[in-house]
Amino acid sequence: MNKSIVPLNELVNQFAKLPGIGVKTAQRLAYSILEQPPENAKAFADALINAKEKIHFCKICGALTDSETCYVCDDMLRDRSTICVVEEPRDIYVFEKTREYNGLYHVLHGVISPLDNVGPEKLKIKELMARLGDGTVKEIIMATNPTVEGEATASYISRLVKPMNIKVTRLAYGIPVGSDLEYADEYTLTRAIRGRNEI
Amino acid sequence: MNKSIVPLNELVNQFAKLPGIGVKTAQRLAYSILEQPPENAKAFADALINAKEKIHFCKICGALTDSETCYVCDDMLRDRSTICVVEEPRDIYVFEKTREYNGLYHVLHGVISPLDNVGPEKLKIKELMARLGDGTVKEIIMATNPTVEGEATASYISRLVKPMNIKVTRLAYGIPVGSDLEYADEYTLTRAIRGRNEI
Repeated sequence: MNKSIVPLNELVNQFAKLPGIGVKTAQRLAYSILEQPPENAKAFADALINAKEKIHFCKICGALTDSETCYVCDDMLRDRSTICVVEEPRDIYVFEKTREYNGLYHVLHGVISPLDNVGPEKLKIKELMARLGDGTVKEIIMATNPTVEGEATASYISRLVKPMNIKVTRLAYGIPVGSDLEYADEYTLTRAIRGRNEI
Repeated sequence: MNKSIVPLNELVNQFAKLPGIGVKTAQRLAYSILEQPPENAKAFADALINAKEKIHFCKICGALTDSETCYVCDDMLRDRSTICVVEEPRDIYVFEKTREYNGLYHVLHGVISPLDNVGPEKLKIKELMARLGDGTVKEIIMATNPTVEGEATASYISRLVKPMNIKVTRLAYGIPVGSDLEYADEYTLTRAIRGRNEI
């Protein structure tokens, strides 16, 4: 750290808080900001504030959106009989990139994890159940991560949904176990969607 | 990109502009901002604006500072008979980390590079000459990068300074040729300072 340049250290610290960014990289990023014209720093700052202010969760599925509902829920051409259940909003992006899936989504905003004190009541499971009431939905694809917590969450929801005569499927194990959906490439994920099995 | 979430795309684009950050990493960083409380995004934005507003160049040596002069120039315990000439402000940080060097600095803010249309008049060479007038400075260490442009700049300044009876030295080739000072580790740089040669 530069001992006396407080605003520089402040900026380095902010970059270093980001996931996967160490102190040395944070310094390079901070210096790169200082080398650019002030408008660029302003635009970056505005983008941060704007993103945080304008983006919230879709009131239907919990995806990120800057309107009341997200573009998937709004799209009348999507297949409304299938809901793909994911852990986090960012997982939707990976599915959309495959162009394989044409149904709707539901974001749990977490997984059941007793060690972290996250029980089913903290996830958007009630909201999912509410969407199943009118009989439109025929299939739920459980696309939680292939981790212990993701599996447990998938089983839990499967047990709740099955009595409603809705098919519950799980992504095929094309995804390497113990990994994270965020890092799956389109091809692996395409195969996982095609090979999904009822649970 | 998420087709319709403009503020998210905006933020991803801003991250992707940073050196060494690709689109996929930019997305991860943008999502990590959205997952944090709004105060964090605000603090980050403030740090960007603040750094850009408060940090400018030391009016003596051209280093980064948030006062009129930098902490090296202000430090009366530093050896005022030696000036280390570097290309960019960030290079000073690498020198300071070695704790080997106790003199002053001068930042050129670039190197002579005819291909990029940068002649000597665009660098802070006049300012360096002005610091040499009163006879305090006995040695100039040329610490430009060991690239073609860095070498040319070192020779150019050496030719200007030698008639003034000031010793001009160059960092020893401990530094891998063709590399960049920014990536040198403290040990290599310590050896380079100790083995410096007159040019």
